[in-house]
Amino acid sequence: MTVFSWPVRVYVEDTDFGGVVYYANYLRFCERARTEWLRAKGWSQAALADERGLIFSVVSAQVNYRRPARLDDELVVTCEPRVDGRASLRFAQRILRGEELLADADVRVACLVAGTLRPTRLPDFVVAEVA
Amino acid sequence: MTVFSWPVRVYVEDTDFGGVVYYANYLRFCERARTEWLRAKGWSQAALADERGLIFSVVSAQVNYRRPARLDDELVVTCEPRVDGRASLRFAQRILRGEELLADADVRVACLVAGTLRPTRLPDFVVAEVA
Amino acid sequence: MTVFSWPVRVYVEDTDFGGVVYYANYLRFCERARTEWLRAKGWSQAALADERGLIFSVVSAQVNYRRPARLDDELVVTCEPRVDGRASLRFAQRILRGEELLADADVRVACLVAGTLRPTRLPDFVVAEVA
Amino acid sequence: MTVFSWPVRVYVEDTDFGGVVYYANYLRFCERARTEWLRAKGWSQAALADERGLIFSVVSAQVNYRRPARLDDELVVTCEPRVDGRASLRFAQRILRGEELLADADVRVACLVAGTLRPTRLPDFVVAEVA
Repeated sequence: MTVFSWPVRVYVEDTDFGGVVYYANYLRFCERARTEWLRAKGWSQAALADERGLIFSVVSAQVNYRRPARLDDELVVTCEPRVDGRASLRFAQRILRGEELLADADVRVACLVAGTLRPTRLPDFVVAEVA
Repeated sequence: MTVFSWPVRVYVEDTDFGGVVYYANYLRFCERARTEWLRAKGWSQAALADERGLIFSVVSAQVNYRRPARLDDELVVTCEPRVDGRASLRFAQRILRGEELLADADVRVACLVAGTLRPTRLPDFVVAEVA
Repeated sequence: MTVFSWPVRVYVEDTDFGGVVYYANYLRFCERARTEWLRAKGWSQAALADERGLIFSVVSAQVNYRRPARLDDELVVTCEPRVDGRASLRFAQRILRGEELLADADVRVACLVAGTLRPTRLPDFVVAEVA
Repeated sequence: MTVFSWPVRVYVEDTDFGGVVYYANYLRFCERARTEWLRAKGWSQAALADERGLIFSVVSAQVNYRRPARLDDELVVTCEPRVDGRASLRFAQRILRGEELLADADVRVACLVAGTLRPTRLPDFVVAEVA
């Protein structure tokens, strides 16, 4: 199985006064990779909301910061989803600079009905993709 | 007439690798001051949308950067609105550290109907406040 | 013992297209509270770096998202630090809207020598404050 | 002459509660395009600082917001630099969605000595590139 990965370039906007990427911004990078994974499967979050009435919402996120990313770095963010119960997905994610692991994250995302924000079953196509 | 002003503390999130506030973030600070000016008049953007069906939308922004703001700085952001035609406001804003002018901005904001996004007349209470 | 807490107002910049605070931004709010806790003890991060040659760096962060924060919300962010070994602190943090718990976080922060980025013992004044 | 352009995808992090890109974030997109223009000429900001002791600093920015960008949009940001005196560059920039102009910006950037932050002459290679 191939792991989905997405390139991210570090710009000035991502850095802080320490000369490194600000710690909250790794979660932005992780979301970009999850969004592109979904897009690679043929879906956008906007389309899911419009056509299926479903939204994905982050329930928890755990990030381990191992080495700092810096301005101009070309990072790769990986995304390995798995089904976690009937109504949520869990993404193992890594942020790499070449072979070097800079950070890893474990992000749990619930599937909700757009109107009520109640949990609902994952759509079949998602389950099929990650099973 | 007193000029409305709002304090802003600079946190790590606001800085970039140069050790100063990232240039786009001055526009965040300006919006906080405009929002608090509106709140001081008894209105929130959410309430305006819900109760009057109106939203404010930035049409143009001009910022002059004079001296950099730094981590831990206690800034003051001023906000001087004036009516600019029937359907827009113009805010002269300054970002100060004590007596020192760090940046100034000129921000034009249009009043729109929430549903259609068409320009509409400023509500009377706004005109009365800034006239 | 009183828990340190810091107020945070939600502005447009903090929200996303879902009408709620973007998930990474809760980590910004948490850092503001940690920064203000340190400041309440008489220290800024800048002063620690300049005078002691020490920086604090986040090693891991775990966030649980329970209910969404929204535009205009007045939040309170708490910060309960404890010593975690000789060279790091661990902060239990909560984000509240009134009595309602919106999110909680567990953030581990290492004390590093500014030049080498090697772990070093927490300064005594910090240990004294959190013991 | 070809105009330099750079693609930008809109992610959740870029949007606000109005469902559109937050107004300050257009300046982020503009900086990405300027950075990539410089990189296309063989230079990064980090390398300019390290090897030449020069930094570029935004002096003023004017943005006109014409139509909102939305989640998932694939934008193109253009970047047309010209010399503006001996010590600064001026970038005409546009943000497009297909043929549609969403915003345009005029950004003036000064060339400074890294240590003193005093204005200094643009390096010859930059003048040669934009003349």
